[in-house]
Amino acid sequence: MTIKILITGGTFDKEYRELTGELFFRNTHVPNMLELGRAKIDVKIRTLMLIDSLEMTDNHRKIILEKCRNAKENKIIITHGTDTMAETAKFLGQNIENKTIILTGAMIPYTFGSSDGLFNLGSALAFAQSLPRGVYVAMNGKYFYWHNVRKNKETGVFEESLKN
Amino acid sequence: MTIKILITGGTFDKEYRELTGELFFRNTHVPNMLELGRAKIDVKIRTLMLIDSLEMTDNHRKIILEKCRNAKENKIIITHGTDTMAETAKFLGQNIENKTIILTGAMIPYTFGSSDGLFNLGSALAFAQSLPRGVYVAMNGKYFYWHNVRKNKETGVFEESLKN
Amino acid sequence: MTIKILITGGTFDKEYRELTGELFFRNTHVPNMLELGRAKIDVKIRTLMLIDSLEMTDNHRKIILEKCRNAKENKIIITHGTDTMAETAKFLGQNIENKTIILTGAMIPYTFGSSDGLFNLGSALAFAQSLPRGVYVAMNGKYFYWHNVRKNKETGVFEESLKN
Amino acid sequence: MTIKILITGGTFDKEYRELTGELFFRNTHVPNMLELGRAKIDVKIRTLMLIDSLEMTDNHRKIILEKCRNAKENKIIITHGTDTMAETAKFLGQNIENKTIILTGAMIPYTFGSSDGLFNLGSALAFAQSLPRGVYVAMNGKYFYWHNVRKNKETGVFEESLKN
Repeated sequence: MTIKILITGGTFDKEYRELTGELFFRNTHVPNMLELGRAKIDVKIRTLMLIDSLEMTDNHRKIILEKCRNAKENKIIITHGTDTMAETAKFLGQNIENKTIILTGAMIPYTFGSSDGLFNLGSALAFAQSLPRGVYVAMNGKYFYWHNVRKNKETGVFEESLKN
Repeated sequence: MTIKILITGGTFDKEYRELTGELFFRNTHVPNMLELGRAKIDVKIRTLMLIDSLEMTDNHRKIILEKCRNAKENKIIITHGTDTMAETAKFLGQNIENKTIILTGAMIPYTFGSSDGLFNLGSALAFAQSLPRGVYVAMNGKYFYWHNVRKNKETGVFEESLKN
Repeated sequence: MTIKILITGGTFDKEYRELTGELFFRNTHVPNMLELGRAKIDVKIRTLMLIDSLEMTDNHRKIILEKCRNAKENKIIITHGTDTMAETAKFLGQNIENKTIILTGAMIPYTFGSSDGLFNLGSALAFAQSLPRGVYVAMNGKYFYWHNVRKNKETGVFEESLKN
Repeated sequence: MTIKILITGGTFDKEYRELTGELFFRNTHVPNMLELGRAKIDVKIRTLMLIDSLEMTDNHRKIILEKCRNAKENKIIITHGTDTMAETAKFLGQNIENKTIILTGAMIPYTFGSSDGLFNLGSALAFAQSLPRGVYVAMNGKYFYWHNVRKNKETGVFEESLKN
């Protein structure tokens, strides 16, 4: 079994540019994170884009959908900025059904030391192996169905969006 | 849903005693790790012991079994040293069937900065939520059934123990 | 002997605000850094301001000068953003002569894990104890006289500004 | 001006061997530390030995003395375990007078993330540039003369050994 990991950017992969004090993207840190986690599972990592999720357009989402559809693997992890992660999950959930797709990200860049990214990547890999087909968000140690998730903008925490 | 986390020690929770240069146990770091991972899932953490898994005896394992049986929760994570994690998994697997029990640990202490512990804890929490009843080891980004796992002493990597 | 440490902000003390992805100031990290360094020297820490050094005005510099003049201590460290550190050094050097004043800072925030801040603070404390009266910049493992220092904007490295 | 850095081992350079849980030496981390500190001063690094300072013998100390005497540089830093750092300082102080020699070390290995090593290296480099000829210990943010220093075994802190 191989898990495909599609990289789209987000806080996860941001770095600090010391000459200007800005955050920017260079490369994904997912391979380093898997090494640190001593992960021995087969993965194929492909960087689709490296963008802030506030900049993610419908065109970007169509590219992601197409890559999910065309992947030989039926277990896919997508790293994604948290701001619009729920929107991308919704778009994918409405358009693809035969694969287990897990979106995850981070609130703090991996390179900043105190990141939640390593924890989230570990949980995303586990959910990809054990959840049935469907599209999910894996954040805050939980998983959420694509049709029932939002980021609480005030707390930064993911929660169910449907009233109970 | 609440996940019970039983602490038994292992490399996971070791610290460096700077006056003597020895490794020792003080308290578990699991609450800090859950905070760093921004985990929002309900957990109950209980420290059963803080020992190196090379010192784990049958009596220790009976205590762990009893705590698993008596727990109200049916999803349980056990942090454990890696050296005898497979043995404890075997003992539990032969004696308890109606709960999802995940053993996990780390190759590097959490306090040493470059630990695999946060990654493993993230995956253990996810497996506890999504795997069916049974006893499992969650290491190296994978899960293993209790009856088919060993630690490769030369590489430090967990692998299936049964011939394919 | 007591060393006064005046905090003005700069990259040194910046943190990452995870809800917005911006850098901001909360409190100085110098006490934590001194604890990590196991520093046992008497210090008095006073936060004058917490600003990016690009925002530092003549008024700010006059406040710093006044605090240096009024300090009972004659060994003073000033933490400062790197962009205008040389300018503040110049202003102080032209206006105060009877104390050893060391300006230092960092290229990477202390909270980001891979910071040069701890190294720079260690060197600034040492220079404060051992250099004669005067105003200096301590960066890149070196010290520079106030009248002969600039930050190279392309490399981010401090260097002598006078032709040899 | 070039500063010679002689490596002898000590906690500074210890690493964690994850297969056995022991501490061991591989290589010195001083070059990485200087890079992290963005140090731009000319240094020549030479590893003389990589040992725990409890294992340091008179023969080892003679080797260190000889390397100090033969060095072209007259500013020398020696990284050294803390347990017998004061003894080596004494031996060097009694036998060499025409150079500035700074012994430093760490209470926590550099690779463990929360080390005092980077702070100590920064202060040692600064003291090497600014103190007059003599042999010193640089620890806890202070410098000590070779004839008046000991490690307090109960607190792990360096202090003056002569009664005031």
